[in-house]
Order: sequence, then structure tokens, then C-alpha cells
Amino acid sequence: MTHLARPIRIRRTPFTDAVDAAGVSIYSVYNRMLLPAAFDGFEEDYHHLKRHVQLWDVSCERQIEIAGPDAARLADMITPRDLSKMVEGQCSYLPVVDETGGMLNDPVIVKHGDDRYWISLADSDLLLWVKGIATALKMDVRVWEPDVSPLAIQGPKSDDLAARVFGEAIRDLRFFRAARFPFQGHQVLIARSGYSKQGGFEIYVEGTENGMPIWDALMAAGADLEVRAGGPNGPERTEAGLLSYGADMTDANTPYECGLVKFCKLDKPGDFIGKSALIKAQEDGPQRQIRAVAIEGRQPFCDRPWAARVGGHFAGQITTAYWSPDYDCTVAIAMMEKAHWTGGTEVEIETREGPARGLVRDAFWA
Amino acid sequence: MTHLARPIRIRRTPFTDAVDAAGVSIYSVYNRMLLPAAFDGFEEDYHHLKRHVQLWDVSCERQIEIAGPDAARLADMITPRDLSKMVEGQCSYLPVVDETGGMLNDPVIVKHGDDRYWISLADSDLLLWVKGIATALKMDVRVWEPDVSPLAIQGPKSDDLAARVFGEAIRDLRFFRAARFPFQGHQVLIARSGYSKQGGFEIYVEGTENGMPIWDALMAAGADLEVRAGGPNGPERTEAGLLSYGADMTDANTPYECGLVKFCKLDKPGDFIGKSALIKAQEDGPQRQIRAVAIEGRQPFCDRPWAARVGGHFAGQITTAYWSPDYDCTVAIAMMEKAHWTGGTEVEIETREGPARGLVRDAFWA
Repeated sequence: MTHLARPIRIRRTPFTDAVDAAGVSIYSVYNRMLLPAAFDGFEEDYHHLKRHVQLWDVSCERQIEIAGPDAARLADMITPRDLSKMVEGQCSYLPVVDETGGMLNDPVIVKHGDDRYWISLADSDLLLWVKGIATALKMDVRVWEPDVSPLAIQGPKSDDLAARVFGEAIRDLRFFRAARFPFQGHQVLIARSGYSKQGGFEIYVEGTENGMPIWDALMAAGADLEVRAGGPNGPERTEAGLLSYGADMTDANTPYECGLVKFCKLDKPGDFIGKSALIKAQEDGPQRQIRAVAIEGRQPFCDRPWAARVGGHFAGQITTAYWSPDYDCTVAIAMMEKAHWTGGTEVEIETREGPARGLVRDAFWA
Repeated sequence: MTHLARPIRIRRTPFTDAVDAAGVSIYSVYNRMLLPAAFDGFEEDYHHLKRHVQLWDVSCERQIEIAGPDAARLADMITPRDLSKMVEGQCSYLPVVDETGGMLNDPVIVKHGDDRYWISLADSDLLLWVKGIATALKMDVRVWEPDVSPLAIQGPKSDDLAARVFGEAIRDLRFFRAARFPFQGHQVLIARSGYSKQGGFEIYVEGTENGMPIWDALMAAGADLEVRAGGPNGPERTEAGLLSYGADMTDANTPYECGLVKFCKLDKPGDFIGKSALIKAQEDGPQRQIRAVAIEGRQPFCDRPWAARVGGHFAGQITTAYWSPDYDCTVAIAMMEKAHWTGGTEVEIETREGPARGLVRDAFWA
């Protein structure tokens, strides 16, 4: 493996010194910002995440703030999802497509009010697209990146840890709802959400200077819960079918190919970008789609797409693959062609280190 | 130093296998793509670059293609630079600002014709901004990222190497001009340009499959010229005052603060985004500006801004700093406040490892 250069261009977070001190061994770069990828190794981190509780520096989930009289109109224009019934404090998973119907990002939108939204980004500068639209249409809205750095609490002991620091009421917070909880005299915005299937929260830390007090309080309160620093975990998120924008889907894919049909309401009131392209895509039906694939044995890291073949013919491609200790196989995410996407289909995978047998599944593992 | 995760999301280039085989030791990530930052070390690479010739995998300079009847109008709308006299095959450095006058990118635009331009990007997804504008205004233009991967030849022996592979005529190519030269039956687009002061070319490799034949031919032809793999070199580009978008300037800076006044023609025909903000910025005059600062001794790597102070007062901030073997000091780029930007001003720098004395200069070194 090679080292990572760390110029200012690859942004630090409010927690970077603490992450370094905690012994991060592998960094990723996400939205031009440092994202811790591993500490003791993918597998050791995986076992810990499934048993205990971790703090994840996911500051790289940068926010787009849309604020002003045209905020609701702009938010509605950039997605096929119907936002009309969204209430304050609600989070919604948000497919965003361009004029060709291709995915530009798959963020989570948080509604603060009819005139104020945050969009918590996956890995693309969607801010620039939204700014371009608002500027071109001279909309009465401000679109910018506020100083907000999400810090995730993930793992089965998340509720216990959060309750110690933010109060017992946080246990009643529903999934994909956000509310404010007290911390050292502030009211901190916290959502029940996160990029794992182990349960937990995302704290929207407002103001760089407010990050470390929260980190330190959680670490101190969770010592007996074995809290430690972590990050989104490759094998765990793959078992759960949590997609990675830029790997498992790109702007070459429609939401239908990504299995996001339930978030597309093409007859919602008003126009939105990509509507005619999505109507056609829906009529045609997807010709390829995201699937879970179990690959035998322990395969190498997937740093480039691996072709999947059936009888020598191209059947799809693997974009994520990790050894899963709990399922005793390499768990993988693939974009499979329609003729070969049925659960139970046997495929031959061309991994970086040679051929391997795989099995298309009807569902992800977790 | 920590290792870099290499999921598919951090894109490989046509040359990544060759770069790995050549012994890259530090990668950077630029436009969500691998960029080699060092092989034998910044200083060893520096000496080699200044004496011989290097191949740089700068595929991460992703292209925006703007094509169609509205291409010239759209190109003109996104910059304060006057493009009206640009001829086919010309390259122009292009400040791009948002509606507040803040820099969104500082790419190079290449004109292929009145209906077709490429914009060779610094590190931000400007593609999304340009797409957002074109989509919102329903312009008759296609905006996309073509499969083009720049490969740079840099160093004093660049002309000799390029002439052996692409023919003697390449020696007559003027600075910031692009033309097609023969290679194995194709015509390859090559510009005299690059992110160093040592001279050289950038080959716009069209089609991933066409990359390695060119790489291999250059490596074979240049063996006696001591050609080797390299990348943009920190100390060399700092001596030359070549700015890095995202570090030395961001969207918080106007072109005037970045010393780009000569590229801003606010009275050019037609409107452009940010015009009223730049008129005000020009009238007010910049309150801070890019300067070269010489720092005594060998300072650490600059991974976060270092404050510069005069008599205890904030005077500016250092955003890039490297030890320069040729100038026997740490060469640095700073954004200095107006009261303290005069050449000869002595400043105290708060580096990551303690205070150091610096001197503001009237010009960069090379």
C-alpha cells in the first residue's frame, strides 16, 4: 500500500488530531476530506463495531444548506422524491439525478423548515450543481456549505452511550428523525441514522470548535462500553447492502438500476430535473441492477471492477468485495445484467488475482 | 504517515498499474482520482525533474467537454476572462467564479472550435456547476466528462523526448498552444503546458486504451535521457508560484486576491456569472493577496494553515511550504493581509512544530 499525501487541499476535520492519535492506519478521501477507513484492520474493526460502540469522524458528509424563500421549491426541483409530506426534523434518503436520469449523489436531506434544508452528501460536489441551478434561475435562496461536521455513534451500545451524554430522551428518537439534545449548555442536532446496520446516531456538529468537546465527552462516558474510534466498515456495510456512490453506482446509473424505485414518484406535483429521462427509464425498465453476490473464499481488495460471467458471457460487474467473517465468504455488491440477476445464478468472477465462483443472491445478508 | 484506501470510488487512471510498478511512494487524491505525489521523495524527485525529464500521470486533470450550438455562449458565461479572441488550438488559463466572486476552479480551457471546448480542471467538480447552469437554462449544449486522461512530459529534456516520439515539428509548438501530432497511426492532441516551470507538454490521451502505448513509447525512447515517472512536485511548483486550488485559494477568494487581475475583463461583451460581485471587488481592491514567503530553516509539511504574525497581529496565512534545496530555505505560498504584504516584511510563522521567521517577497523564486 502507498502513503497518502496530506496537503491542505485534502481537508482536515475537527477530529483529525484525535483520529490520528487513536491510531488510524488507513485513510480514505471523501469529498476532498480525510475519512478514517481502518484502525486495527477491516476485520478487527468489524468485530468491534458489531459488539460495542464506535465514534466515526464522518465530517466528510458535507452539508449543503439551502435557505431562503425559494428553498422548498429548489429542494423539490432536484429530486424525483416527493418531499411534500416531509415534516421538520425529518431525514429522507434523496436520489438526485441529472437531465439524463443519471445519479449525481444519494444524500440524506434534513428539513429544518420550509425555508431551510440540509443535504448530507455522499462523495460528489453536489453543492456546485445546486448552486449552478439556483444562480442560473436567479432563485431567492442561499446555497452554501456551512461549518457542520457529522460525528457518528455506531454499534449496539450506541443508545447506552448517547443516553449518558445527551440524556435518556434520546432513546425515544425514531429512525431517520433529527432533534436537538442538550450538551454543555448548547442544543445539539442529532439524528438516528448512520452508514451501518448496527444502529446509532449522527451528531451534526455545528462549528469546528464544538467538535472535540463532544468527542471527548463520548470517549470518557463510554470507557466501560469499550468505545473507540472507527469508521464506515467495508465488510459490514456490504453485508447490509449500503451502497457507495462513485463505486457501486455512478452518474451512468439510473435510480432504477440502483434499486431506488420506491424513492421515485414521477407524478409528484411540479417539475423536477431528469423527469422525462426517468419516465422513459421506468417505461423501459432497468436492464441491469444492484445485487448481492457471495464469492467463495477470501478474495483480494476490489480496487477496479471485476467482470462477472455466465458461460463466458458478460453478466455484470463487482464493484465492492470484502471478506466477511460472519458469513464465511467474500460479500460483494454487483451491477448485474437483467438476464443474469436472478437469485441463485452462478457466475464466474474475474478478480484481480484470478477467477472465483460467485452466487447471485435475492437479498443482502444483514 | 498513513496508508491510502483505494476503493473504486477513488478512480484509477490508464497509467495506474505503470505508476505503481514505477514505485510510487505517496499518492494524492485529486478530483476523486489517484495522483502520484512522490516516488523517491520530494527532494530526489525535484532534482531529477530539474535535470532530466519525467512522465506525469495527471489524468486527474479531468476534462469538461462543452459541445453544441450554445457552447461558446456557455463558456463565455462562466468566466470573467474575455474569450472572444481565442483561436482554435489555443489554451487559456480560466478563472471561474460563483455569484459572490469566489473562485470555483482555475482550469485551462482548450478551444477546439466555436462549438466545442475542453476545460482541464483543478480540484473541484466544476462539471456539476456547468451542468447545473446549462440544465437550468435549457441551453442547446452537451456538458460531460469525456474519456480523456492528460499525460505530462516535464523537465528540460522534454522537447528532445517528445521530438523522438511525436516528430521534430513538436519543437515549434508555442506555449499554451495545442495541436495534433502523429503517433502509431493516430493524431494525438498535445499542448505545450504543464504544472512546472521546467518546460514540457501535456498529451490529452483520448481513450483509456490509448494510454499505455504512449507511456511505453516515451519510456523506451527516453532511456538515455533518464526519463522516469514523476508527478507535480511540491517544492518546484512553490518556487514557481504555481497555485493549488483548494489550498492556496478557495471559493472564499476573489481572482484579485489570487493575483489574477490580468485575466478579468469585467467590461467584456455580454454578462457572466459573478460580474456585479467582481465589479465591487475591483472597486474595493483586494484586502489580502497571494505572496511568496521565504521561511528560515527546514520546516515541517504544511497540512493545515499556519498563521503569519507581525508584532503579534494576524498578518496572513501560509498554505503551502516545502524545503527548497536550490534556494536553501522553506519556500512558501501565503495569503497576506494588505497591511503586511509588501516585499521585505518580516513575519513570524506559527508552524505545526513551533515558531519560525519568514520574509515576504516581491516575487516567487523561479
